[in-house]
Amino acid sequence: MKTFTNRLIDRIKDTNSHLCVGLDIRPEAMNDPSASLNLLKDHSKKIIDATHDITAAYKPNLAFFERWGSEGFKWLEETVEYIGDGPIIIGDAKRGDIGNTAKQYAISLFDYFGFDAVTVNPYMGSDSIRPFIDNPEKGIFILCRTSNPSSAELQDRRFENANLMYEEVAHLAVMLNKNKNIGLVVGATAPEEIRQIRKIAPNLPFLIPGIGAQGGDLEKSMQYGNFNGAALINVSRGIGFAGDLSEISIREAAQNYVTKMRAIHE
Amino acid sequence: MKTFTNRLIDRIKDTNSHLCVGLDIRPEAMNDPSASLNLLKDHSKKIIDATHDITAAYKPNLAFFERWGSEGFKWLEETVEYIGDGPIIIGDAKRGDIGNTAKQYAISLFDYFGFDAVTVNPYMGSDSIRPFIDNPEKGIFILCRTSNPSSAELQDRRFENANLMYEEVAHLAVMLNKNKNIGLVVGATAPEEIRQIRKIAPNLPFLIPGIGAQGGDLEKSMQYGNFNGAALINVSRGIGFAGDLSEISIREAAQNYVTKMRAIHE
Repeated sequence: MKTFTNRLIDRIKDTNSHLCVGLDIRPEAMNDPSASLNLLKDHSKKIIDATHDITAAYKPNLAFFERWGSEGFKWLEETVEYIGDGPIIIGDAKRGDIGNTAKQYAISLFDYFGFDAVTVNPYMGSDSIRPFIDNPEKGIFILCRTSNPSSAELQDRRFENANLMYEEVAHLAVMLNKNKNIGLVVGATAPEEIRQIRKIAPNLPFLIPGIGAQGGDLEKSMQYGNFNGAALINVSRGIGFAGDLSEISIREAAQNYVTKMRAIHE
Repeated sequence: MKTFTNRLIDRIKDTNSHLCVGLDIRPEAMNDPSASLNLLKDHSKKIIDATHDITAAYKPNLAFFERWGSEGFKWLEETVEYIGDGPIIIGDAKRGDIGNTAKQYAISLFDYFGFDAVTVNPYMGSDSIRPFIDNPEKGIFILCRTSNPSSAELQDRRFENANLMYEEVAHLAVMLNKNKNIGLVVGATAPEEIRQIRKIAPNLPFLIPGIGAQGGDLEKSMQYGNFNGAALINVSRGIGFAGDLSEISIREAAQNYVTKMRAIHE
């Protein structure tokens, strides 16, 4: 049995790629903003076809599926199946609830939908995290320092004991990582924070969003985030909606990111 | 146009009830733990039939529906429709994501599913909250001090400026409440914290879970939480799975809670 962290590292080595392609597919970003669900389904397949061999992971964000109700979740089921074996599939759900309820989410996301990993929100503490980490083969990425502008409002606040909140979350993640299946979400928009979090959690996988539309720093994210070989750099809009939205444009954008990442000394 | 807060207060007055019935329906709690989705659907209707006239609000927790994938979300759609007009319907989703994505969740939960309010996680800051509060008629309850044992790990930590984290969240909620549609989630398991949060946010609705299976304090929750008339006391397992799970047992349990609440001087 391989732990989630080792599965992830192996996939990164096999593809020589740290790329995670975010699947955030909304009609407003299509050439026709009144695009039907069927057109969006076709577009998601196009993104997967264009990137499958150079992608370490896919990250469907559940919001973009949930928006379509039960039909959207059928689309999510189809998407996980379409990706198939090989890439790590991360359900970007940012779930967090009391233990009894978190257990239901773990059943949903791991057993029903079949994700390899999910994103989890730490606000409610370790009870809300434990139901997701029982199985060493399945992983989580805990929100630590996120990529959005207002992340600093709480995450960058300093506690009395002199740790910042995101540092406390990193310590909590290290403490809970008995099964070698916990990683952290750290935004590419905050490279100094990535460096700081790496000191606390040298062995944890990092999922690094914020490259592309959000303006994060690819080079520093790789330098500071990847010295253990387990950094995933997520790009969503910058690949899925590249250029004229054709398979060729999408492939080109993805290849371009992978080439840049390979060129960066870690 | 009535703001969410006023809609909620009116409904509480109309029913003379602060009861919120949580719909957390899982097969393991049924008499037959291998109960099918159809049996669970029947049970959810039974709970609604038994409580409709004495309930201020219903709170379906999305985890229990998501577990069944797209079929579960069809059940959620049917449940919201079955409840119909009258009760406030709160989607307990605890969502929190970057602005662009939070917008998708707002479309999903308010426009598609038709919830009157949703629960929101504050870890990512105000960007992740704003897309939910544009429409004054729709409301949110921000997680502030939750009812689970590990809530204290982060929420009760003190920042350098001498505020506890949950106090900061209460201040943030007050600041964002321009449209009179923001409330807070404060657990009945922490009555002193409820009292403290009421000082910071005297006018905000409170959604108070943790009564029943979690062992929260009903009397203090009402005394400290309800002096503005806008407290909702949530009971999930203690009503939905009362006694022999018959409609009569469920009705009796709900009526019992309502009678107790009416007897408590606010």
